[in-house]
This record gives sequence, structure tokens and C-alpha cells, in this order.
Amino acid sequence: MKNIGILGTGQVGQTIGKKLVQLGYNVTLGSRTADNEKAKQWATHTGSTAKTGTFEDAARNADVVFVCTNGAGTLDAIKMAGAENLKGKLVIDLTNPLDFSNGMPPSLLKGLHNTYSLGEAVQDAVPDAKVVKTLNIVNCEVMIDPTKSGGQPTMLLCGNDASAKAEATKLLKDFGWNDILDLGDITASRPMEAYVTLWVRTYMATGNGYNAIKAIR
Amino acid sequence: MKNIGILGTGQVGQTIGKKLVQLGYNVTLGSRTADNEKAKQWATHTGSTAKTGTFEDAARNADVVFVCTNGAGTLDAIKMAGAENLKGKLVIDLTNPLDFSNGMPPSLLKGLHNTYSLGEAVQDAVPDAKVVKTLNIVNCEVMIDPTKSGGQPTMLLCGNDASAKAEATKLLKDFGWNDILDLGDITASRPMEAYVTLWVRTYMATGNGYNAIKAIR
Repeated sequence: MKNIGILGTGQVGQTIGKKLVQLGYNVTLGSRTADNEKAKQWATHTGSTAKTGTFEDAARNADVVFVCTNGAGTLDAIKMAGAENLKGKLVIDLTNPLDFSNGMPPSLLKGLHNTYSLGEAVQDAVPDAKVVKTLNIVNCEVMIDPTKSGGQPTMLLCGNDASAKAEATKLLKDFGWNDILDLGDITASRPMEAYVTLWVRTYMATGNGYNAIKAIR
Repeated sequence: MKNIGILGTGQVGQTIGKKLVQLGYNVTLGSRTADNEKAKQWATHTGSTAKTGTFEDAARNADVVFVCTNGAGTLDAIKMAGAENLKGKLVIDLTNPLDFSNGMPPSLLKGLHNTYSLGEAVQDAVPDAKVVKTLNIVNCEVMIDPTKSGGQPTMLLCGNDASAKAEATKLLKDFGWNDILDLGDITASRPMEAYVTLWVRTYMATGNGYNAIKAIR
């Protein structure tokens, strides 16, 4: 596995993409349009193995795809990437269905909480892909360096395919995670996404955007 | 503060009640009816300062009330306790609005998740009481002895009244909690109750019912 596609050109996509380039992967940062200025600047600053393209480009050429869009745009991005381009591939979903329409703190988007989740919606949109939900529970700097939390936090993950979770776990270890808890099938996206509302409250109460949890078990 | 009322005669109420008796409080374990056999047996085994009665008895004589019913029965119990008997008092809400109607894992009860919570519903039912949500995030043995988790976990709490939260914090310290995180007003019950669905998934994945979290911040 050499080629990784990233859907989303925001802070999460750029940070994950840069880390993957540093780890030796060819990375394509995908966006809605091929001429996204932010993505082009990222590629210029990141190196020769950092490329840009559409969501479809990013997915088609990839062995593994990271979904790093905002929650409201995730399903559109998956659709634009194309189910045929994601077929059989590990799709790592980092997104959260946050609804900021009533300001802070966010709630979760209608239809994507309690008995359903964005992780499941992504898997349902591309049933032939192997979706793994992970990394959504910390900020993007902690995603690629858990020690930035100031402790030894736990990373959660879930998904329906054991080999896909094993592959995702290897990438998590490359990011520095040494305590990884597999919560089961993709329905565990529900509590993993709901947890993010607790993350936001901890951030609001402490001012610490690097907060994380250690699962004691 | 010498007299504590407990609403609920299940494992949580009995465990909390016994611990409070050991700490020197007069404790009344309240139930729907005055002749609850389970409550009477608890009192017999717990000591002379352990008493039983109705929800109303437990609330009327108390300086502080712990709500330890199951989630589906909480608002009924509060109603039976009587708003006039809870007026001005610290009401510590340990309940979770879990819906087991579709088996394991539970979801959260209709109307009590995402943009509302059971903690808020309790506060709204007794607006003159000072509701503090806490302890709902661990099993009842860990509630009264956090070291049983095998680590140094964090206890979360929230509520609208600062002095009530300070009083609840003292009781938490008596239970052995030395890392307590105040998440703000009672609306933080939303993520605190949603977190319990993550607790259940961790339990299902690991078999460890003593699991807890350390909030790294």
C-alpha cells in the first residue's frame, strides 16, 4: 500500500496528508474541484509525493482513503468520490456529524445520532468498501501525535471488517498510538461520534483543545 | 447536612446508600411503596441509621437527595417525591435514559438525547431544586471506590448551581474521587448521558464492567 487519497482539504485533511507524506506514502488531497487553491498550496509546501485532485481522483488512485471532510459534506464527498473507486478499499472515516446551527456547543445532525451514525451512513453509501471509523475523537494534531494530549490516551476504532481494522491499526501505530481499543462493528460509530459532544464540553470547560481520554479497562 | 434520601432501591441505590451510612449519614432508601421488601432487607443489613420509606418520605426528611432509579422511571419517582420536598435541596442525579427495547447495546430514550437529556428533565421537573448530574458514567462499585476501575479515572459533573456542585464535589471526594471535572451547566448532561453508550460498548468489547475514563486535559 503506497497510495493514499484524502477527501477534504481542511485542517484535518492537510495535517493527516502531510503526516502520511512524511511516512513515505504518495498522497492525493482531494477536493470538490481540481483547482482548489488551498490544496495546491498544501502540495507545494509538502513535497513531491503530495498531489491534488478531485474527490474522484483521490479515490481512484488510492489503496486507502481517509475521509476528512466536515460532517455535513461527508456523504456528498463520498458520492463524488464514486462507489466504484472505493470498492474493496479501506476507507478510514474521521468525520463527525456536528450541527453548529444553534452555535456552541454543537449537537449531532438530524438522523445521524443515537440509533444511526455518520460512520454507518458512509458504510451504507459504499457497501463494497471497508469502512473503519477512528481518529474522530481528538483534534488533528493529537491524531498524528497522541503525546500532544499531555498523556497516554486511547484511540477507539470500529468497523465491520477485521482485516481492514488491522490495516487501520498499523497506520494508527505509525501515528504514535499505542493504546487502541476496537469497539466492534461500524454501529459503534454511534457512541464514538456522540463522544465528540463530550470532547467539546471538556474543551469549553478547560480551554484545552488537546484533550483526550484514556479508557481504563 | 446529616440526612440523605435515596430514590430507588436497585443495586445503585443500595450501594450508594450503604456507603453513605458508612460515612455517617442517616439514609432513607425510598421506593414506590413504603413496604418494599428489598429496601427493608437492605436496612436490616446496613445498620440503625439506614431507614426505608416512600419516595416522598425519602425526599421530605433529606438534606440531600440521590436519584438512583432506572432511567425510564426517573421522572415518575421525582414526581412522587414531590417538588415541595425537593425545593432548595441538592439533588444528585445518577440516572441514564437507557432504552433496552431493542436489546444490547441500548440507545437513549426518545426525547432524551442530543438536544435534551434526563438531567435537564429532572431539573425542569423540580426547578427549585439544585440538580447536579454526576456518577452516572461508571458502575455503582466504581462510584463509591474509583480505584476499582484499576486506574485513576475522572468523574464528570454538571449543574446550574455552583454551591450545589461544591457540595456534590465534597461527597465525591468522600467516595474517593480525586479527579473531578466540572463540565458546566445542566445541559452537559447530554454528553454525559450519551457517553454511557460508549461505556456499554467498552464493556461489550472488553467484558470489563469496571471500565472508566481518565480525561487527559
